[in-house]
Amino acid sequence: MPPGKQHGMHPSDLIDVDRLWRRLMRLAEFGATSAGGVNRQALSPEEIAARKVLAAWAREAGLTVLNDPIGNLFFRLEGTDPAAAPVLSGSHIDSQPTGGKFDGTFGVLAALEALCALASSAGKPRRPVEAVAWTNEEGSRFAPGMMGSEAFTGKRALDGMLAVEDVDGTSVRSALARVLAAEPDVSGRPLGFPVHAYVEAHIEQGPILEREETSIGVVSGIQGSRRFRVTVSGEAAHAGTTPRRDRKDAVLAAVGMIDALSGLAGDPEDVMFTVGLFRVKPNAPSVVPREAYFSIDLRHPDNDVLGRLGDAIPDCCHSNKGACAVAVEEIAHAPSLEFPGSLRESISTAAERLGLSWREIHSAAGHDARQLHYHCDSGMIFIPCRDGISHNESEWTEPHHVADGSRVLADVLWELADGR
Amino acid sequence: MPPGKQHGMHPSDLIDVDRLWRRLMRLAEFGATSAGGVNRQALSPEEIAARKVLAAWAREAGLTVLNDPIGNLFFRLEGTDPAAAPVLSGSHIDSQPTGGKFDGTFGVLAALEALCALASSAGKPRRPVEAVAWTNEEGSRFAPGMMGSEAFTGKRALDGMLAVEDVDGTSVRSALARVLAAEPDVSGRPLGFPVHAYVEAHIEQGPILEREETSIGVVSGIQGSRRFRVTVSGEAAHAGTTPRRDRKDAVLAAVGMIDALSGLAGDPEDVMFTVGLFRVKPNAPSVVPREAYFSIDLRHPDNDVLGRLGDAIPDCCHSNKGACAVAVEEIAHAPSLEFPGSLRESISTAAERLGLSWREIHSAAGHDARQLHYHCDSGMIFIPCRDGISHNESEWTEPHHVADGSRVLADVLWELADGR
Repeated sequence: MPPGKQHGMHPSDLIDVDRLWRRLMRLAEFGATSAGGVNRQALSPEEIAARKVLAAWAREAGLTVLNDPIGNLFFRLEGTDPAAAPVLSGSHIDSQPTGGKFDGTFGVLAALEALCALASSAGKPRRPVEAVAWTNEEGSRFAPGMMGSEAFTGKRALDGMLAVEDVDGTSVRSALARVLAAEPDVSGRPLGFPVHAYVEAHIEQGPILEREETSIGVVSGIQGSRRFRVTVSGEAAHAGTTPRRDRKDAVLAAVGMIDALSGLAGDPEDVMFTVGLFRVKPNAPSVVPREAYFSIDLRHPDNDVLGRLGDAIPDCCHSNKGACAVAVEEIAHAPSLEFPGSLRESISTAAERLGLSWREIHSAAGHDARQLHYHCDSGMIFIPCRDGISHNESEWTEPHHVADGSRVLADVLWELADGR
Repeated sequence: MPPGKQHGMHPSDLIDVDRLWRRLMRLAEFGATSAGGVNRQALSPEEIAARKVLAAWAREAGLTVLNDPIGNLFFRLEGTDPAAAPVLSGSHIDSQPTGGKFDGTFGVLAALEALCALASSAGKPRRPVEAVAWTNEEGSRFAPGMMGSEAFTGKRALDGMLAVEDVDGTSVRSALARVLAAEPDVSGRPLGFPVHAYVEAHIEQGPILEREETSIGVVSGIQGSRRFRVTVSGEAAHAGTTPRRDRKDAVLAAVGMIDALSGLAGDPEDVMFTVGLFRVKPNAPSVVPREAYFSIDLRHPDNDVLGRLGDAIPDCCHSNKGACAVAVEEIAHAPSLEFPGSLRESISTAAERLGLSWREIHSAAGHDARQLHYHCDSGMIFIPCRDGISHNESEWTEPHHVADGSRVLADVLWELADGR
């Protein structure tokens, strides 16, 4: 019998909002930067240390700790029907190199806190409920990201991921081996299993909820994205002696491409176009560069726009290569998607029962929920963040937003796990 | 009495061209790259090892080995009048990260070989003759370069140079301390001393001599150059959630600047404009970049053109900064110069006596001779290099060009040291 029925209580009443906040601040110590942010990249020593603390908190609440071959970390609360497919909730704890305290981490800790609340209640849900920290969502050290959820749902093969290397030549395989070796007390499980429903809580990473003073965003869907890597190959030459007409200057060619691509991506005006990574070889002031390598991140909610613009990228690069050669590789293509109405309604109903303002909101950022959407009914809960700032060391959200989001999540998970 | 007078011989007859070539190939082993080039950046362990071998060769010929507080390495042959100001010849042995076997190294080894020839001849020159390997000519690890010759001639203060750091945060001070500590058997001497004349032999780093099948380039002067560093400051933001109008994208602003600068530098068409260094922070694919940092290398033989274009760079950057901030710093400004006619004539006369074709040629690249020009009569001897390619691992010149250049150098040094 649910605690809400038994005692007139809901799991949200059992959420310890102070503990949740303390844990958020504690996790932010792993990879803390001097500017107040977090540099805890995927499969790093900082992430290994943070996982250890997470696992200790889970065990303290009586949860079972598990991991899988891509390093996804699970905390499981048994239901009265252990054979039932579990309800799953979580996010990630890896960060961008200059990331913040909340992106991903809030969703993992809110799910863990919900499990602690369910574990401490008198009744048990029918279905098992699990929290998860997905591996390498950010993709800044090992690109592209979403490795944990993509391996779990089978979208990408594990083998290909394991071969990916960071800029220092360390492979996912070897970094992951260190992560798993550091957790000899954690039971392994295979990749992927049936999931009844997945709910991910996250900061909005945009300005809408804050501006409208709305507590809860019921996420309607996720904007599509396409990611490319462009390698421009020229020829190293002396900067003082090689006439311009004889040069194959990879930086000038790349600059021409990016300028043209940026113009192309200006229509419609809500296209997101970002060149976040740009590397040059040999990168010396008096050498004409022989190679430029850059990333393209393109996003738009309309799949037609995303298709048209993404398809035009290779031609646009080739038209601007001058005397250089260019290779354009598309490394990820995720179309826009819409979460099922039933799950969105569960979230908005829970928010209303708690007296919280809510609105439907589109996610401009990609999340692990994108992959789970094709595996089971999925949904997302957003909370406001200050000035919409994210992927930035000054990322912030208020404790009362964290409390509201985790309360809604706990009640939604309970409802889903009870099988109503 | 000069060997030429005594035996009908000139020092050029005593040059051991096979040994000189073997030594060129031997030095290329220090920092050898898999593509056949050299990565022997200033004050690196590879350079320390190469200096040790150079010093051993010099001692074998009976020369005195000396170094100074910026790490310039000297090999001295006494003259019959030890109080006379010496004739100096040399270049540098540091390389670009993907440099070749000849840039700089040829000039140092040709000078050393000339000293070996003079040392083995029956007569002594009146003046002392010294060979030198100047510290950090290239400026790729520690920018700007020319540190050895600039400290020697007093153009820049030593203290400022010592504080310069490489990309890993290692200072010139600490890297230099390791170089000097590795040479406990080398006598120190103060920076700068009167020099009677300076002659630097070098590969052309351009296509003219090869194309015209001319053996010797009598360098008429050096093209002027200005170097800048541009820091574009934006704001890190999420690549999927931050609307373009709210972004401060440092890479897009830098791209706009470089595009505009490249257009500006297109008139006249013989302007050399290079952005060889480009660094981004945080350099992650899904983060709008908060900083872009790039170098500008601008060169032209006409000081009016160099002045006009260089002066326009800050405004051009500011006009294209968009929502970002920009700081433009000029780190070096060397005007075009012309070497004295007397030294040029010594070189052309020596070439003619040896039956070698020669022509006057302008140097498009900067060299240590630029600084020495303001310290004493200076000149340069060029030899052809394949396809004009330099600052590239495939840099090449033929053994017979090396032989011709070193023979001319030996006779010129002899003439200058004899005081005729």
